Amino acid sequence: MTKSKVQFQHASGFSFEVLATDGEARAGRLTTPHGVIETPSFVAVGTLGAVRGVSVEDLEAMGVQVMIANAYHLHLQAGEDLIHSMGGLHGFMGWHGPLMTDSGGFQIFSLGAAKEHGVGKMASIFTEGSGQGGHLSAKKKQTLVEIHEHGADFISFLDGSRHRFTPESVVALQKKLGADIMLILDECTSPLHDYAYTKRAMERTHRWAMRAQDTHQRHSQEAQALFGIVQGGAFQDLRERSAGFMAQQDFDGYAIGGSLGKSKEDMHRVLQWTVPLLPQNRPRHLLGIGKVEDIFEVVIRGIDLFDCIAPTRMAETGTVFSRGSKRYVMHVLNARYRDDPGPIEERCGCMTCKRYSRAFIRHLFAAGEPSAMRLAAIHNLFFLETMMKEIRQAIKEGRIEALKKEWSVIHH
Amino acid sequence: MTKSKVQFQHASGFSFEVLATDGEARAGRLTTPHGVIETPSFVAVGTLGAVRGVSVEDLEAMGVQVMIANAYHLHLQAGEDLIHSMGGLHGFMGWHGPLMTDSGGFQIFSLGAAKEHGVGKMASIFTEGSGQGGHLSAKKKQTLVEIHEHGADFISFLDGSRHRFTPESVVALQKKLGADIMLILDECTSPLHDYAYTKRAMERTHRWAMRAQDTHQRHSQEAQALFGIVQGGAFQDLRERSAGFMAQQDFDGYAIGGSLGKSKEDMHRVLQWTVPLLPQNRPRHLLGIGKVEDIFEVVIRGIDLFDCIAPTRMAETGTVFSRGSKRYVMHVLNARYRDDPGPIEERCGCMTCKRYSRAFIRHLFAAGEPSAMRLAAIHNLFFLETMMKEIRQAIKEGRIEALKKEWSVIHH
Repeated sequence: MTKSKVQFQHASGFSFEVLATDGEARAGRLTTPHGVIETPSFVAVGTLGAVRGVSVEDLEAMGVQVMIANAYHLHLQAGEDLIHSMGGLHGFMGWHGPLMTDSGGFQIFSLGAAKEHGVGKMASIFTEGSGQGGHLSAKKKQTLVEIHEHGADFISFLDGSRHRFTPESVVALQKKLGADIMLILDECTSPLHDYAYTKRAMERTHRWAMRAQDTHQRHSQEAQALFGIVQGGAFQDLRERSAGFMAQQDFDGYAIGGSLGKSKEDMHRVLQWTVPLLPQNRPRHLLGIGKVEDIFEVVIRGIDLFDCIAPTRMAETGTVFSRGSKRYVMHVLNARYRDDPGPIEERCGCMTCKRYSRAFIRHLFAAGEPSAMRLAAIHNLFFLETMMKEIRQAIKEGRIEALKKEWSVIHH
Repeated sequence: MTKSKVQFQHASGFSFEVLATDGEARAGRLTTPHGVIETPSFVAVGTLGAVRGVSVEDLEAMGVQVMIANAYHLHLQAGEDLIHSMGGLHGFMGWHGPLMTDSGGFQIFSLGAAKEHGVGKMASIFTEGSGQGGHLSAKKKQTLVEIHEHGADFISFLDGSRHRFTPESVVALQKKLGADIMLILDECTSPLHDYAYTKRAMERTHRWAMRAQDTHQRHSQEAQALFGIVQGGAFQDLRERSAGFMAQQDFDGYAIGGSLGKSKEDMHRVLQWTVPLLPQNRPRHLLGIGKVEDIFEVVIRGIDLFDCIAPTRMAETGTVFSRGSKRYVMHVLNARYRDDPGPIEERCGCMTCKRYSRAFIRHLFAAGEPSAMRLAAIHNLFFLETMMKEIRQAIKEGRIEALKKEWSVIHH
């Protein structure tokens, strides 16, 4: 363990302090205008301004420190002007704590079929979700996204309307939303993209990053931070180039995005290539990680923040975190819990476990009661927050590897 | 106003006290083994052991005094033996307050096609819902319910399994569930039934009532109360006979069930015929009433308890109670609320109105967020409980008619 005091003070109310390190893992404190995030921290996903199935009161009660909403979805479904007029996203949602917004880069490219202009190359791997809009499914041949140097033109998956996102407009959009932390617009490549395309997309994302940073700095009256995003797919030289480039742009923090490869080992390698090249005194965010076993792996590779839809997505189907179960999850709908009077987890302090049995929660799911999902989500959120507290404590005490072993020992 | 002290002390932990009357309206206090219900009171409907979309914690926070679950549905979907092994329905649900169970008479007859044996008469008016079970819809000709002198044989709408409910078995079932207040098995006729059938069904319900009371009294070690149910459709002489008959059976309380006619005026008449014949010192329950305008009408006709699915059923489609709106409801999905920064109701103290705007709640509904319904339900429950407090206070102050006028004046 090294007690270090890496500190970064941002002009507009942000600061990040590394309180302790344990190998690459670090325990820190990220201060935002809406409160402090103890890191490493889970970031709850509230794509449309709400974490599925739970309320802001629930998040507060479960100890959730920070939320991330999605600029792309909010642009299409409520609109940044409406949200701005409601006191920004904080006022609109009623969430008073730290808040991030993702740019929507991932959504633009995953909800549509991507096509690179000039090259005429159909990135057919992006067709996932292209049939979602009734209007659009009739003309599937038409691409939903066109990437240009200026930005991305895309068709709404909701109503077929046309939209253009540029690095500048996405910063402006997120300034209207007013979250504490914004992410730049990036082009999100897939594991199926080849080296040549991934490199071209990464270089474009780098040019976009400079434009985003420029727009942000020219309109920095708002107390908002902007994070860069490292791209480069699963290619070592590209990831290293991208991390090095982003580090030079003096962003307030860094996300690692795009394809993390095809396996857990690929993801671990991507982190090992990139994290050491990022500034020690800035927070590092990993986009879209949430399984228990993955959390340990990314924390010991130096990640400070990770957003994760798992607690609520799992809850929708009755899947709940359980420290003693295989892969840390149990399916409460399983027939064996029909007459189980115990809580989801013994000694769990969440609202759900304090009052309800597995048998009752199973009954609620079986009966199609809408409250079932909320009870499961509350447990899952509390479970992750409690685990993250343990992890932070372990880093401060120099025993993160021991804690990881403790957790995995149950499963072997 | 008359300050009266009509009191009824039940052997097993129940008592009912009329604290004040104002015309036929009365303010009372119903004591049960799980707590006190100030009357007149709304009874929240939790058919399957949960009020749709909300948790027990929510009910407590909103001031809900008493819940009613359904013995028929719980028999089919969790089973009384399972529930009994979980500490009864209170233990299973985690609800520690006063609790009622309906017998399921209404559900048996409304979920199936009823057929009176011996007479061979098809009561086709009971076919509502007969197509719900995929298995059953294939053989629609077969009736789902057969009424005999012994009780009712019916086929589960869930899986086609055969079940028999008798007055005795339904008391036994509800004793396993262990709610504070049980309702007898009755045959629920519809407004389309003729006089002859309604009379025959009523007389059978009377014989069933005696059998239920007998079973209850022979197994009265449990601290549970049993309510009779007055039948007789919209026919004055039948309603009077039924009320007089039930009054003589010395039930712990009385529900008014069955068809209340085809109009509000019919319902008012049914109450005027029956309520005066019921013992002054027993609580009176009206099954299935919940609109604001109806609540005033039934309270001034002497009703103490009414169950009501409206707050949560309305909430599912974004309909919320609003004192200042036409018919006391507003539809929060209406486009006019898109940019409305105000709460559902100004000066409302519910969790929803304290934090969220109409615009945000509308957005949650529009985006299909499952939390939307809960926020609307919480407002609706709180609204009704607050209204009932006003009503109880007005009765105690002898100004229930003035309060009724105050509320209706807004709408004209």
